[in-house]
Amino acid sequence: MVFKIGLLGLGTVGTGVAQILLHPQGRHSLVSEIKIQKVGVRSLDKPRRVDLPLDLITTDLEAIVMDPEIDIVVELLGGLEPARSLILKAISQGKHIVTANKAVIARYGDEIYSEAHKQGVYVLLEAAVGGGIPVIKPLKQSLGVNRIRNVMGIVNGTTNFILTQMSSHGADFNDVLAEAQKLGYAEADPTADVDGLDAADKIAILASIAYNGRIKREDIYCEGIRNISAVDITYADNLGFVIKLLAIAQKINPDTDELQVRVHPTLLPKDHPLASINGVYNAVLVEGDPLGQVMFFGPGAGEGATASAVVSDITNIAGILISSGDSKILDPLLSSDHQHYCNVVPIEKVETRFYARFLCNDIPGVIGHLGTSFGHHNVSLESVVQIGMRDHLAEIVVVTHDVNEGDFRQALEEIKTLSAINTIPTVLRVLHS
Amino acid sequence: MVFKIGLLGLGTVGTGVAQILLHPQGRHSLVSEIKIQKVGVRSLDKPRRVDLPLDLITTDLEAIVMDPEIDIVVELLGGLEPARSLILKAISQGKHIVTANKAVIARYGDEIYSEAHKQGVYVLLEAAVGGGIPVIKPLKQSLGVNRIRNVMGIVNGTTNFILTQMSSHGADFNDVLAEAQKLGYAEADPTADVDGLDAADKIAILASIAYNGRIKREDIYCEGIRNISAVDITYADNLGFVIKLLAIAQKINPDTDELQVRVHPTLLPKDHPLASINGVYNAVLVEGDPLGQVMFFGPGAGEGATASAVVSDITNIAGILISSGDSKILDPLLSSDHQHYCNVVPIEKVETRFYARFLCNDIPGVIGHLGTSFGHHNVSLESVVQIGMRDHLAEIVVVTHDVNEGDFRQALEEIKTLSAINTIPTVLRVLHS
Repeated sequence: MVFKIGLLGLGTVGTGVAQILLHPQGRHSLVSEIKIQKVGVRSLDKPRRVDLPLDLITTDLEAIVMDPEIDIVVELLGGLEPARSLILKAISQGKHIVTANKAVIARYGDEIYSEAHKQGVYVLLEAAVGGGIPVIKPLKQSLGVNRIRNVMGIVNGTTNFILTQMSSHGADFNDVLAEAQKLGYAEADPTADVDGLDAADKIAILASIAYNGRIKREDIYCEGIRNISAVDITYADNLGFVIKLLAIAQKINPDTDELQVRVHPTLLPKDHPLASINGVYNAVLVEGDPLGQVMFFGPGAGEGATASAVVSDITNIAGILISSGDSKILDPLLSSDHQHYCNVVPIEKVETRFYARFLCNDIPGVIGHLGTSFGHHNVSLESVVQIGMRDHLAEIVVVTHDVNEGDFRQALEEIKTLSAINTIPTVLRVLHS
Repeated sequence: MVFKIGLLGLGTVGTGVAQILLHPQGRHSLVSEIKIQKVGVRSLDKPRRVDLPLDLITTDLEAIVMDPEIDIVVELLGGLEPARSLILKAISQGKHIVTANKAVIARYGDEIYSEAHKQGVYVLLEAAVGGGIPVIKPLKQSLGVNRIRNVMGIVNGTTNFILTQMSSHGADFNDVLAEAQKLGYAEADPTADVDGLDAADKIAILASIAYNGRIKREDIYCEGIRNISAVDITYADNLGFVIKLLAIAQKINPDTDELQVRVHPTLLPKDHPLASINGVYNAVLVEGDPLGQVMFFGPGAGEGATASAVVSDITNIAGILISSGDSKILDPLLSSDHQHYCNVVPIEKVETRFYARFLCNDIPGVIGHLGTSFGHHNVSLESVVQIGMRDHLAEIVVVTHDVNEGDFRQALEEIKTLSAINTIPTVLRVLHS
């Protein structure tokens, strides 16, 4: 049984996908049953690293999604348009979709999945999160029998590379960013990565699967790593932490449907499983009942890794189509038929520990003033360290116990008005081990 | 659509499975479509931690596998018989099988899969390797599109606990084993764990999936951890290694079908992803082309974790049955229809680095003698460290470059005849980072 795919895009990932499909020896036998029917590209003149018959390649993307011969459309264009329109049109033609495009799914997932549900087709996107790491299918196929307490991960390789370099060389953000750009680990416009937007797209997708509901992208609290300084990395290190950009989706209370979904730099205890994930690697940790904790680790990007994930989605659809014969019913573990929205609560309702660094005019009793203001707002402190002097100001670092984020913010507002306080350069959240 | 299961065994894992199925709220909706039809136990009088209607429970296991109402038989008896016979009988009745029984699959997989292939039923066994960690289904469903270079892991929690304790407390094997037995981490008869037999069962299963062929259990080289001493752990530490019991399946050469499959204690560089897996945790690392390395980490045992894996297999079968309607064709990604045997080569053909510790009569020039003997057999040394004196004997530790195991063994035979050599207490293999 041969399955015909239409490939939209022949960039890095598209080339990797074609390489796997054109060389099936040594892989699962199903790979040899996938045939590339058409490949849509922007320009026919560009040199290609893959040996495809020229008559497969076309600039008419529209014709691919309309081609009645094609069973599965593989969207590797990236970006929002024309990806969104082509995906929707392909679905309307009854084609299954495989995509690596987290942005289009995080923003237009509602529309795309509603249409897919109506047409009875799969939309798979393993490559959209964690590159080559199998995480979306394991979440759907293996972990869903658990009550998921939380899904958290290091899902952006660029920021993890930057933080790892800052941490190992004591370097500052801007210097490392420049280096990452030179090495090709960061884009010329690094916004999507360093401001956490890419990680937010990915946690939207993971949360939607883990909690069986849709996630409004704008409900996700998102804070990037531009404000992390070498100073804070050193203090965190002395306190037993590393700083990582975490994407977190968490059930607040097992008895309600309230979720937190957020992306922010986080102090992680050094013995936490995610603390040792360095460089461009990604990892996703899932905690559920009765499972406990499992972690998936691997390359978060790159041609081969991402192509592996894309082809695995294609073979999953092919495998199910083989077993389902003429039935048009979808496997409920692989389809996403939820229609309701998850109840994502605002960041003020989060309970977490905080790290904050204060620069103070060296007035006797400043620690007492801080403690009093925190006390007014139910913020209890785990440790207060007076580090020393910086620019003629006393530097104080506090770590709180678990507190309500809203309370903590109010305490900070009060503290800002204290004459003893000069500035509050850094406020970061702290994770338990 | 309701699927009826027959549960064979209501011990720890069986109880965990029943708990999940009886409390489906907050889990994937498919869980609520699985109904426990019958539960087979040895004794009706034993108190149970799960609230099952009494009329579901029976001691007539035979009747369960013959029950025409039952779609899926879940075998959680453990051991070889009656597990094997009941599984075969259930298959002959057209029932799908979910099992956590690595021993029966590693030994009777041929017979069981041949019968399953004939009858067109699934035999799933996620819980047999890595407890709650999704590793078998990801290997089948996500990683098979790669050319797998190797699969290696820490797949036995008992030995990993023992080695971790030895390493952190400088304790000796027998003391830690006694402690592990007291804590319930090791059986009264620890043979299957400490001699590597359990790990060998598991790597047989992983290798069979990764390399799409059957593995003869007796082809697996297997060496346990009884000979590991606190002394070697300390030397390894000084050289930058930790000692772990690894189960390894590896393609020797991408252009041949020769495989190595082996279990033995191994020196791992401290920066290797598996080096930081401690205590009773398990982890499996898969390396493939074009994917690169991915790792799966989590609890390798325990009621909840194992039950999560078992129920995920049940829901996978249910999901596919829903989508396949009346079709009797199996999804080739989940079924195991390979009939041929993998070409597992003897350990002598392995290329690896070695660590060896020698006790020598303190004769000048002993290092020279060692070097000469190794040289005779093409064994080149990476480092030679004369550690000091033990029991009036000079202690020398060598680490080799990659060498042929057969050559290395011949060199050791020659070295044993040297008058300078008193004993060779330890020989271990060393992994690259």
